[in-house]
Amino acid sequence: MEAFNMVTRKEVADLAGVSEATVSRVFNGLGPMKPATKERVLQAAKQLDYHPNAIAQSFARRRSGNLGVVLPYMPKVHLFSTYYFSEILSGIGEQVREQGYDMLLTLLTPDESQDYSRLYRSQKVDACVILGSRDTPEQRSSLQQLQEQRLPFCLVNQHFEGMTLSEVDADHVQGSCMAVRHLQEAGCRKIAFLNGSPQYSNSRDRLVGYTDAMRDAGLDMPSQLLLEGNYSRKSGYEAAAKLWERRDEVEAVFAANDRMAIGLMQGLRERGWTAGRDFAVVGCDDSDAAKLSDPPLSSVSVPFYEMGKEAARRVLAQVLGESSGEPFHIKLPTRLVVRESSIRKEN
Amino acid sequence: MEAFNMVTRKEVADLAGVSEATVSRVFNGLGPMKPATKERVLQAAKQLDYHPNAIAQSFARRRSGNLGVVLPYMPKVHLFSTYYFSEILSGIGEQVREQGYDMLLTLLTPDESQDYSRLYRSQKVDACVILGSRDTPEQRSSLQQLQEQRLPFCLVNQHFEGMTLSEVDADHVQGSCMAVRHLQEAGCRKIAFLNGSPQYSNSRDRLVGYTDAMRDAGLDMPSQLLLEGNYSRKSGYEAAAKLWERRDEVEAVFAANDRMAIGLMQGLRERGWTAGRDFAVVGCDDSDAAKLSDPPLSSVSVPFYEMGKEAARRVLAQVLGESSGEPFHIKLPTRLVVRESSIRKEN
Repeated sequence: MEAFNMVTRKEVADLAGVSEATVSRVFNGLGPMKPATKERVLQAAKQLDYHPNAIAQSFARRRSGNLGVVLPYMPKVHLFSTYYFSEILSGIGEQVREQGYDMLLTLLTPDESQDYSRLYRSQKVDACVILGSRDTPEQRSSLQQLQEQRLPFCLVNQHFEGMTLSEVDADHVQGSCMAVRHLQEAGCRKIAFLNGSPQYSNSRDRLVGYTDAMRDAGLDMPSQLLLEGNYSRKSGYEAAAKLWERRDEVEAVFAANDRMAIGLMQGLRERGWTAGRDFAVVGCDDSDAAKLSDPPLSSVSVPFYEMGKEAARRVLAQVLGESSGEPFHIKLPTRLVVRESSIRKEN
Repeated sequence: MEAFNMVTRKEVADLAGVSEATVSRVFNGLGPMKPATKERVLQAAKQLDYHPNAIAQSFARRRSGNLGVVLPYMPKVHLFSTYYFSEILSGIGEQVREQGYDMLLTLLTPDESQDYSRLYRSQKVDACVILGSRDTPEQRSSLQQLQEQRLPFCLVNQHFEGMTLSEVDADHVQGSCMAVRHLQEAGCRKIAFLNGSPQYSNSRDRLVGYTDAMRDAGLDMPSQLLLEGNYSRKSGYEAAAKLWERRDEVEAVFAANDRMAIGLMQGLRERGWTAGRDFAVVGCDDSDAAKLSDPPLSSVSVPFYEMGKEAARRVLAQVLGESSGEPFHIKLPTRLVVRESSIRKEN
């Protein structure tokens, strides 16, 4: 048993009176620090017989101590102010802070959207978490390149059919299936689906969940009730006009995110239809806006914060030699949160 | 006139068919790039006789191409999901993207909250924007140190009395004064003030605005109506209990941010008091939550996005030799957005 060292980083941190991040910094050689602090940590480690991974340490000098986070080019969107990106970033941020890392955010521009490897080549980052990537031939080829160069990276909320890349995803098939079944249980049979672009794997997954639930219940899916927006509130608002023309054929709408669902509710309310009374709606994300909308919006809760944290943890484990370099595939569960928008009072 | 070169980066970008960020990258020597792209930019620059600042270029090789952003230690808060930080970060992000820079986010841990200069020493950043700093002796001394070392940095939404540091702030005195005057015009004379910690200069500025408006109107400010929260929704909710005990002395509340105002409205509603009917409320920030709350919340709109963008622009201009290294002081105006929470219907 003696060969198996059970002393944890936390114990060293507690004894030295510093944070776990500081212990990591000392042993991973990340950035300068007060000599007195370093000495306190080394003394505590010695006293407790703490030995962090030796292979990892030998590489320490060559590391930047930065985890790269690649953000997509989305003109006019305040990226950090969207629930989706802000929650993922909060999760990544918490994990890098715990590990004494910094976060290098790179915002893609239209003409360099494929050049992920620049960050590694210039030694700006040790690994990357890639957010908001879309399934296009260009992105496939640049991810393939990263993979072939054995540069550690991880996708969040996106997977590429036929490629074996590290990814942390949520079970959007299951979430969508639950949402549509809930609408069916609320008595709805004519259920429209407002999806996002199929360039996002989560859109395709949600389509699978929707069709599974509709087919299992023996319900029709007329093509004119399958609409596509771009995940903005405006596109939901515009979809309301289309649905209104076919209002006799619609009892409920499942929308692939909350913002589109909220835009849709606004558009239909202007025409006299109130969600939770004249029709039922379920969104996805369970964002703050879902809780605050009028009526409060039923929604599929997706653990974006945990997804970001897990992606950072896994990819840094590869960098620090704490795990194999093999691609990992994590899929976290979703859950349905029922609020007033999906309970039709006058039926 | 010939000596004064008027060709802009945008013209070069348009001719070369690339973004302005790419032009910046070429001339600032930031990161590797496709040789063909670089050649296109250089050709376009030659054709247009474009000459970027020569002094700036001579330093290019020594630059990291990263703008540091220091974020405070706030346990349990999803930092990126707060309206305040996400809007400032969106503004900084847009500016660095335009200039071909990346953003190095560093999340402070409790025991290294003062060590700003680590980032410069390890050549991780060329300059820093510091968010969420508080007026404590420790922070004053570490900022003083940065200043003495002539490391370029900028504070956002915080100023330190008696120090001459670069800062981009909003006119919180003016905003608070407008808010309180609006409550007075709505017929309220007993106006409580729910402020945040005086460690933030914006809290102190808001107190000045509140007292100015109350004194000018000849209204009393009983000390028991001056409450302090910590800018969380919970602290607003808790303040509701205190105000309820003195409900005969309160007609309106001015809260130093929207989250506290919303918590306060929730707490008072549970006791039977509805905002916009039994009492009037104005918040600050004009966040998304203000628009979505029930009733919609009147609020002082603060241009956080523009503040972040301006801070990044100014501090990068110092790095790139496009401006003097002298400290700058920018104060952007605020404006009042009136919604239902501050209109008392039954009076």
